Amino acid sequence: MSNVTEVSADLAKIVGAEHVLPGSTAHYLHDATEARGLLGFADCVVLPETVEQVAEVMRCCYERSIPIVPRGGGTGFAGGCVPQGGVVLSLERLTKVRAFDPFSWKMHVEAGVPTGRVHRLARENGLIFPPDPGAAEQSQIGGNIATNAGGPHAFKYGVTGAWVTGLEVVLPPGNIVEFGGPFRKDVAGYDLKSLMIGSEGTLGIVTAAWLKLLPAPECALPVIACYADAASGCGALERVLGSGLVPAALEYLDAGTIAASGGAFPWPLPEQAGFMVIAEADGTRAEAEALCEELREALGEDALELYSPSARETEPFWRWRHGVSIAVEAALGGKLSEDIVVPFEHVGRAIAATVELGDRYDLPALSWGHAGDGNLHATFLLAPDDTAALERADAAARELFALAVELGGSVSGEHGIGLVKRDALSSLADGTVRSLYAEIKDIFDPAGLLNPGKKL
Amino acid sequence: MSNVTEVSADLAKIVGAEHVLPGSTAHYLHDATEARGLLGFADCVVLPETVEQVAEVMRCCYERSIPIVPRGGGTGFAGGCVPQGGVVLSLERLTKVRAFDPFSWKMHVEAGVPTGRVHRLARENGLIFPPDPGAAEQSQIGGNIATNAGGPHAFKYGVTGAWVTGLEVVLPPGNIVEFGGPFRKDVAGYDLKSLMIGSEGTLGIVTAAWLKLLPAPECALPVIACYADAASGCGALERVLGSGLVPAALEYLDAGTIAASGGAFPWPLPEQAGFMVIAEADGTRAEAEALCEELREALGEDALELYSPSARETEPFWRWRHGVSIAVEAALGGKLSEDIVVPFEHVGRAIAATVELGDRYDLPALSWGHAGDGNLHATFLLAPDDTAALERADAAARELFALAVELGGSVSGEHGIGLVKRDALSSLADGTVRSLYAEIKDIFDPAGLLNPGKKL
Repeated sequence: MSNVTEVSADLAKIVGAEHVLPGSTAHYLHDATEARGLLGFADCVVLPETVEQVAEVMRCCYERSIPIVPRGGGTGFAGGCVPQGGVVLSLERLTKVRAFDPFSWKMHVEAGVPTGRVHRLARENGLIFPPDPGAAEQSQIGGNIATNAGGPHAFKYGVTGAWVTGLEVVLPPGNIVEFGGPFRKDVAGYDLKSLMIGSEGTLGIVTAAWLKLLPAPECALPVIACYADAASGCGALERVLGSGLVPAALEYLDAGTIAASGGAFPWPLPEQAGFMVIAEADGTRAEAEALCEELREALGEDALELYSPSARETEPFWRWRHGVSIAVEAALGGKLSEDIVVPFEHVGRAIAATVELGDRYDLPALSWGHAGDGNLHATFLLAPDDTAALERADAAARELFALAVELGGSVSGEHGIGLVKRDALSSLADGTVRSLYAEIKDIFDPAGLLNPGKKL
Repeated sequence: MSNVTEVSADLAKIVGAEHVLPGSTAHYLHDATEARGLLGFADCVVLPETVEQVAEVMRCCYERSIPIVPRGGGTGFAGGCVPQGGVVLSLERLTKVRAFDPFSWKMHVEAGVPTGRVHRLARENGLIFPPDPGAAEQSQIGGNIATNAGGPHAFKYGVTGAWVTGLEVVLPPGNIVEFGGPFRKDVAGYDLKSLMIGSEGTLGIVTAAWLKLLPAPECALPVIACYADAASGCGALERVLGSGLVPAALEYLDAGTIAASGGAFPWPLPEQAGFMVIAEADGTRAEAEALCEELREALGEDALELYSPSARETEPFWRWRHGVSIAVEAALGGKLSEDIVVPFEHVGRAIAATVELGDRYDLPALSWGHAGDGNLHATFLLAPDDTAALERADAAARELFALAVELGGSVSGEHGIGLVKRDALSSLADGTVRSLYAEIKDIFDPAGLLNPGKKL
């Protein structure tokens, strides 16, 4: 205890006493895995305001061998920021936009800037920052970088990492370094920027990023199609790719997901709807309209119903889509949700396997996600206190991971490994690769104090 | 000598005697840096046919502490494959297309497949592999990955790494591993795939890659504009980005480059032409035509001449553009050519600085390159035997690197560090970052036998 008191006092000297909070401050002890009962504990919470303060905090903790758990918006799905003791270092006060040059399509932002603010700032200047993970208003750009977050539009535009050209990072024991910068190509040195992206705060703490932006498409036109079952829906997905169409997003919802979230869908749904495909055409108006027509044709075959929201209806529609995860959770009050990836041609098999696993483990099972990227949010529904169901869901998830690997895929597309998928990672990677991970961790964080217990 | 005889005999047992060549075989001792007089030497050359043979060759060399120099098509501009002794391991016989699924836009190819063959195979199936480095017919996909090669169309589509979803790699002392695979998103583990891309054969030997493809745009329409000087040309470049136009390529040639290569330009050039901008609009015919018109408008202001090649003229035009490097070299018989990167807003300054350096060091100086990506091929012309000029060019290049870094850029966008830019790298990266590079090299290649003397 006195150790905690001491470190709190030292941290208060760095950031000011009002920016050191008790370790019991509930807000900093969970992320979106709360729905499966994950709750952490911490010695204290520290809120630095500058990169220099982050470096000093790290130095202070490193000297005392105290673990540091970096935290963004706390919207993760893998427990990556859920502390298991030590100091929670929240980046929420690093909120400066250090530079923004709309004419050369780039922005320099600190890690704590909410992703939604990046989106708006770009938009107000005729540009977009394409990555659109679910909780853009709550999540922060630093957290998105730490998990290499995706979202529906990653199909055409790629994940967060594709839009990061440079990082400022604090490395143990407290060194501030830059990887990349405000330039678009770089093959000097090894690609430590990419190594840092998706490393979930286990190698260093991202404090700022140079983001690449893109002129905003003039318009975006979603096309939504309902089918009787997954087989006909997956046939439609294959027709889109097979026809060489490139929508900005290509999403799906299975029968269970429609049942859980369809009540808030903006239009009436056919009663027999057992599968939904969402595609979006973007570009100039003429381009988007032409592609929209082609998408309607490819998706229309076998469809029970086709929807083409007007420009005015598009935003409410995507709001509904981003709310699917919450709607699904509301059904029983809790869920265990994974985000496996498979090669596109195996999406249908992975969707069916999720339902079969649910049957076998006596759990309501469903999935939705980014079909074009082969990225499924395979989910088992739970009542919050049903520990027996949680155990069954864990076992079902292990089988799901094995299936993803067997199909030539991976255990996480955009959520990361965090605390909850470490077993999956060890089954995925072979011994040589696992050793490399451990040796790399050891180079960056020799004392193992950065987000311990996560990722590896 | 007996050591060389012994290892040759052992390698012959692995790959067959006819696939072990004498170390003096001229073809394997140089790359495109030959024009500045760089010539290597080797103990022998080995040509394995399979990944298993690559692993056995590596094991054999590693056991005997003999350096291994992996080699693709030998078209590099940094001496990355120029041996300084040891065994040259050429990937030229690993030429299988292991899988190709046009319907899910992906291809699995071995490292020795020429990039041009990847392009054609994709094209014949309505798809493209977008990266288009200069020597696509000579270079191999493995070499493109080792340098993270770019090209004109990297402006819209990104460099080689953006299109690689998985790698098969042989790591010292002879382990075959996979990083990534036939899937489009992955945040399990650390991103060792990206670490390998651009590592110039110093961490492992890439033997195969999963490539992501894209439906081919229906048409591509170049717009070429000539200006009196660099200032008006750079103004035009800024108008393109400032207007929010997204061409597939955005290139430039300065006055010296036009003088050296303009003779073969497919159309008459205005006598006063002192700067050229090349943009290309692609997409459906309607899209490309609309964008082409907007590009003509943005580029037309201040232009001496505007060209819009017909569909038939487009291929010969790009052939000319890809030949610029050779034409420039022909002027005096040799050149020292760098590929610095600067933030887009500093392109004009870097172009002018190259010419000023030439004046100061009494060398003909010119540049051309990928303006949209801020990637300049800054070049000093040399007679092949003029060692005094080569020394002056080296000194000028060092100043150029310092300028790139001062402007917030990097010393290499797409060529790599190889043998010839190692000094530049040490001036670029700070001590902490350089230590990380060395420690990472040490993890992957503890005996330091993989392409020694390169990159670091």
